[in-house]
Amino acid sequence: MSDALRELRDALRAFAAERDWDQFHSPRNLAAALSVEAAELLEPFQWLTDEQSRDLPPETRAAVEQELADVLLYLVRLADKLDVDLPAVARAKIVQNALKYPVATSRGSSRKYDAL
Amino acid sequence: MSDALRELRDALRAFAAERDWDQFHSPRNLAAALSVEAAELLEPFQWLTDEQSRDLPPETRAAVEQELADVLLYLVRLADKLDVDLPAVARAKIVQNALKYPVATSRGSSRKYDAL
Amino acid sequence: MSDALRELRDALRAFAAERDWDQFHSPRNLAAALSVEAAELLEPFQWLTDEQSRDLPPETRAAVEQELADVLLYLVRLADKLDVDLPAVARAKIVQNALKYPVATSRGSSRKYDAL
Amino acid sequence: MSDALRELRDALRAFAAERDWDQFHSPRNLAAALSVEAAELLEPFQWLTDEQSRDLPPETRAAVEQELADVLLYLVRLADKLDVDLPAVARAKIVQNALKYPVATSRGSSRKYDAL
Repeated sequence: MSDALRELRDALRAFAAERDWDQFHSPRNLAAALSVEAAELLEPFQWLTDEQSRDLPPETRAAVEQELADVLLYLVRLADKLDVDLPAVARAKIVQNALKYPVATSRGSSRKYDAL
Repeated sequence: MSDALRELRDALRAFAAERDWDQFHSPRNLAAALSVEAAELLEPFQWLTDEQSRDLPPETRAAVEQELADVLLYLVRLADKLDVDLPAVARAKIVQNALKYPVATSRGSSRKYDAL
Repeated sequence: MSDALRELRDALRAFAAERDWDQFHSPRNLAAALSVEAAELLEPFQWLTDEQSRDLPPETRAAVEQELADVLLYLVRLADKLDVDLPAVARAKIVQNALKYPVATSRGSSRKYDAL
Repeated sequence: MSDALRELRDALRAFAAERDWDQFHSPRNLAAALSVEAAELLEPFQWLTDEQSRDLPPETRAAVEQELADVLLYLVRLADKLDVDLPAVARAKIVQNALKYPVATSRGSSRKYDAL
C-alpha cells in the first residue's frame, strides 16, 4: 500500500480507537456511509451542465473537496476492516478493464462506453 | 500525493487518452459514476447482519474487492479532473473531525455518533 | 395510474412550469437527483441497528418522512418525463419477482434472498 | 393513500409473508436496498447527455422501467414498515417547496435552483 494511504489508515484506526467507535464500524455500516458520502459528492453536480461541472465556483469547489475527502476516508476505513489492499485491487482492475475495452474497438465509441 | 495514488492517476489518464474517453469524463459524469459504484459496493451488504458483513464468503469478498477498486478508480479520476490532492484534503478532514468530535464527549456515544 | 400519483404528477408539472424549471428536468438530471434523495433517506439509518431503525425518535422520523416525500416526488417526476406508468410497471415487477422467487424454495431463506 | 399505492402495499405484504421475509425487512435494510435501486436507475443515464436521456433506445428504456418499478416497490415497502402515508407527506412537501421557492424569485434561475 502507498505511504499516504497507509498513513490515512493508521490515522483512522487511532481516531476510532480513541472514541471507541470500532463498534459502529462494521463493513456493512461503512459501506452504507460510503454510499451516502458518494451521493453527497454527486449532489452539487446534479443540476450542472458538463461545462459548468468543469469550472466550479469557489464555494462549490470547497464543498466538493470535503466530500472527496469523506469518500476516501470511508473507503480506506472499509478496506482496512476487510483487510483489502486498495492500490493492489485497483491496479488489477485497470488491467482487467484494458482487456475488456481494447483500444481498437473502444476508441471514442460511446456505444461501447455505454456498456461499461 | 502518494506514489500509489499518483501511479493510478497516471494509468487512468493513459487509459482514457488511448480510448479518447476524456470527452465522457466531465466531473459531473464521474461523480454520477462514482455514486453508482458506491451503491454496487453496498449491494452485497444490504441484507447482511453486522456479523455476517465481517466474515464474507469468498465469492462475495471477491465481488466486494472489485467494487472497492472501482470506487477508488473513479475517485482518483474525479480528483484528477478537478485538480484536487486527495491525501491532502483527507488529512485536513481528519483534523477537522477531531475538533468536531472531541474524545472526551464522543467516546462510545452512539448519540453523538448519530450526529456525524 | 392512481388518483394520488396522478395528482402529484400534475402538481409537479405545474410547479416546474410556473418556475420555468423544465429546462433542468432532463431524465438524467432527475435520475441523479432521485439517487441523491435516496441516499439522504439512508443517511439517518446508517449507524442504527435493525431494532433502532424500527423505533425512530420523533425528530429522526420527521426527517425520514421528508426524505420519503422527496424520493416519491422525484420518482413521479422522472416517470412523467419518461412517460412511464409507475403502478403498471410495479405490478408487472411483482409478478416477475413471484416467478423468480417461488414460495417453496425461497421461504425464510437468506441464501436465496441474498441473491435477490 | 391512493388505491394503486394501497394495492402495491398489500401485494408486498403478502409477498413477504408468504416467503417469511419480514425478518429481513427492517427499515434500515429497506433504506439501503432503496438506495441501491436508485443507483441502478441512475446507471443507464450516467454517460448520456441530457438530450440522449430524453430519447432512450428501447432496451435501455425497458431496463429503466424495471428500475423505476424497483424503486417504487422498496419505497412503498419502507413507508409501510414506518407507517408513513406517502401521498400525504409528498403533498405536504410540495406545499413546503412552494414557500421555499417563490415563483417571483425562482423563475428560470439556475442559481436559485442550485440551492435546492
